[in-house]
Amino acid sequence: MRLTRYFLPVSKDVPADAAIVSHQLMLRTGMVRQNGAGIYTWLPLGFRVLQKIEQIVREEMNRAGAIELLMPTIQQAELWQESGRYDDYGKEMLRITDRHEREMLFGPTNEELITDVFRSYVKSYKALPLNLYHTQWKFRDEIRPRFGVMRGREFLMKDAYSFDLTEEGARASYNQMFCAYLNAFDRMGLTAIPMQADTGPIGGDLSHEFIILADTGESAVFCDKAMLDLPAPGLDLDFDGDVSGEVAKRTDFYAATEEKHDEAEFGKIPTDRQVSARGIEVGHIFFFGTKYSKAMNATVQTADGETVPVQMGSYGIGVSRLVGGIIEACHDENGIVWPQSVAPFEVGLISMRPKDETVAKVADDAYEALQQAGLDVLYDDTEERPGSKFNRMDLIGLPWQIVIGPRGIENGVVELKNRKSGEKTELPLAEAIEKVKAG
Amino acid sequence: MRLTRYFLPVSKDVPADAAIVSHQLMLRTGMVRQNGAGIYTWLPLGFRVLQKIEQIVREEMNRAGAIELLMPTIQQAELWQESGRYDDYGKEMLRITDRHEREMLFGPTNEELITDVFRSYVKSYKALPLNLYHTQWKFRDEIRPRFGVMRGREFLMKDAYSFDLTEEGARASYNQMFCAYLNAFDRMGLTAIPMQADTGPIGGDLSHEFIILADTGESAVFCDKAMLDLPAPGLDLDFDGDVSGEVAKRTDFYAATEEKHDEAEFGKIPTDRQVSARGIEVGHIFFFGTKYSKAMNATVQTADGETVPVQMGSYGIGVSRLVGGIIEACHDENGIVWPQSVAPFEVGLISMRPKDETVAKVADDAYEALQQAGLDVLYDDTEERPGSKFNRMDLIGLPWQIVIGPRGIENGVVELKNRKSGEKTELPLAEAIEKVKAG
Repeated sequence: MRLTRYFLPVSKDVPADAAIVSHQLMLRTGMVRQNGAGIYTWLPLGFRVLQKIEQIVREEMNRAGAIELLMPTIQQAELWQESGRYDDYGKEMLRITDRHEREMLFGPTNEELITDVFRSYVKSYKALPLNLYHTQWKFRDEIRPRFGVMRGREFLMKDAYSFDLTEEGARASYNQMFCAYLNAFDRMGLTAIPMQADTGPIGGDLSHEFIILADTGESAVFCDKAMLDLPAPGLDLDFDGDVSGEVAKRTDFYAATEEKHDEAEFGKIPTDRQVSARGIEVGHIFFFGTKYSKAMNATVQTADGETVPVQMGSYGIGVSRLVGGIIEACHDENGIVWPQSVAPFEVGLISMRPKDETVAKVADDAYEALQQAGLDVLYDDTEERPGSKFNRMDLIGLPWQIVIGPRGIENGVVELKNRKSGEKTELPLAEAIEKVKAG
Repeated sequence: MRLTRYFLPVSKDVPADAAIVSHQLMLRTGMVRQNGAGIYTWLPLGFRVLQKIEQIVREEMNRAGAIELLMPTIQQAELWQESGRYDDYGKEMLRITDRHEREMLFGPTNEELITDVFRSYVKSYKALPLNLYHTQWKFRDEIRPRFGVMRGREFLMKDAYSFDLTEEGARASYNQMFCAYLNAFDRMGLTAIPMQADTGPIGGDLSHEFIILADTGESAVFCDKAMLDLPAPGLDLDFDGDVSGEVAKRTDFYAATEEKHDEAEFGKIPTDRQVSARGIEVGHIFFFGTKYSKAMNATVQTADGETVPVQMGSYGIGVSRLVGGIIEACHDENGIVWPQSVAPFEVGLISMRPKDETVAKVADDAYEALQQAGLDVLYDDTEERPGSKFNRMDLIGLPWQIVIGPRGIENGVVELKNRKSGEKTELPLAEAIEKVKAG
């Protein structure tokens, strides 16, 4: 993308109402614009990150055998009356009345709707196990939306729902999602720690939050330092096999959010491994058995002809929240430092003298070559001062910068800068491309 | 995708309330499930088509230089009061009050919101021309939702908005979208005819609807048969150049919807070229100049330092409606006949004897080989009767079917069937893959 044709409204001002660094940086880099309390437009730069995160989550859900569909944003009140949650949700639920005076709502989550889809079609154990997911906008009418996209009202969530014949099967499905989550967050450059958590309005007796550590996190969290060093299960994990070992590796260690914290248990960890920190919840998984299937009569026939309520779990990832979460975890004094997998562009190309015909030609050719190599490139072809170009590139945090100037051209090299380390190297363009591709 | 692991709730029943063939077929093939009047869940098969259409539209918008962002579904009433449309929209607008008694709405379109984004950032002619688009769910509270996804209440629309300094520039932007639309529809296997149209609640004095012909179309349409034979501008069209020739090629011919129809003008077409038919609107473009920019004070400075309201147009494509529209245009007595570009899977692989070890092995290998070739494959590995497998494949309408059976294995061939022509060929798998890839 040529910057002269892009829409990147970068601003120098730090807005007064932006309390945390991710919110400040998202406004300064023109990633989002607030349209109302907790409601945002995702401007082009922000939208690219949102899409990349959504795609990583999609790929890891698919790898674990979940099947994608898409439920609507607007739901009928009846289903929530059936489950008994229509009143439970209180004022956080955005209630709507249509022109025929029918009660509807903007879905804050989808347990009821997916259970209705399930019971409409599935009658036999033979169709199980089944895991259906979607990524859709949700609305929760928070009394005080804050922290930008981290606690917005309209937010993008991936939510998956598993259906199994037995509790044992449901726990296996839970474990699959547990592992898929570890892989998905790992691909985003995050260390997400699964922690015992309260189940809240979703219900059930087994639940883990996936937490990334950041000083600005909303929750106090406590865990064993050893968990931070465990590698993700890996993309070659056999999801058809037994993945409980990968889960046990984590659950053997102490890790809990404030609500579930047990000071005595925590005290048993060797002192130098006691991590007491703040964290941001980026995922939450639940096993709740037959809570919804019983209330809504979602049953299947067993091999013996018996009719039993289906065993369910649900699994959420805060896709839009992750954009803020990643920035909280990945920034420095000059701006954002994107992990390459979720960066809006993988490389920023800076032409030092766009008015100089030779420089313009070499930079245009480099732009072409980078795109041919399959890279997302933001090409700064503006006539601004080099200083402001460098500052902007640092601020928006693309992992690599390639600078094209007259001196380099004479020597047949470009300058390649790594945003995270700050390291600068002079090398031929072809080698720079290889370095960027290697990540 | 292995069918034994997929969620494809095909049904033999034709629902009584489904009046048109696309609605019937979408329910029978398990593409959608209705969750309320005009509100649908996109089941896995339907969701895949929706995604493919969205992606084609995205690629053609990007090719024409438009920039993608994402506006929220919920908007503040204030902006619509500013433009004066808050009352105009009447009961079709889904109005919502939040917990703080603020008036909001579920966006039926986004002229106001994008104008607000624009005026917040753009102050100078130097940033122009600019074309911003998104693909987002909209809601129109139709009094009688009908025809399935063709006239739903919650629907997916791509809407683009162009901003130019001069009316001449705005007309050039309009022409770019005109051509991008022709290309996008052409890639979906559709002949979409641009027709003069009324501007309705969007406003302005220049507008074209893009109409595909189908007996079940909602509108009566009239045009010169010669228009049907014009090739699309093509993906190599230079959008930086003057594209008005491609537009004139069409507007030189008579083509109008009922509202704009002029019997006398129509009568001047040679009789054998007079097409009087029914059509489905799949796109609608508008030039409305300064209607919103004046009302909402969206101005830019000219090179002379003058402050002028920006010239705007808006450009919609009904992404979810297109799924139904394509089926209306592409089906036969056995079911859907997908154009390959939007088919949920490009090829269906049928194993005739999944319990026979040799057949299972050859079919598994073929599944692997098809995926390696970059094709989307639905692999029917169920143990159902061949007849019901063939019927289901015909019903869901994948463009190609590959059948693996014991006799073919003996001869080193597979059976390749073209869904549209019905033609069956026996050939080695590698050649079948090449045929499928060639489309």
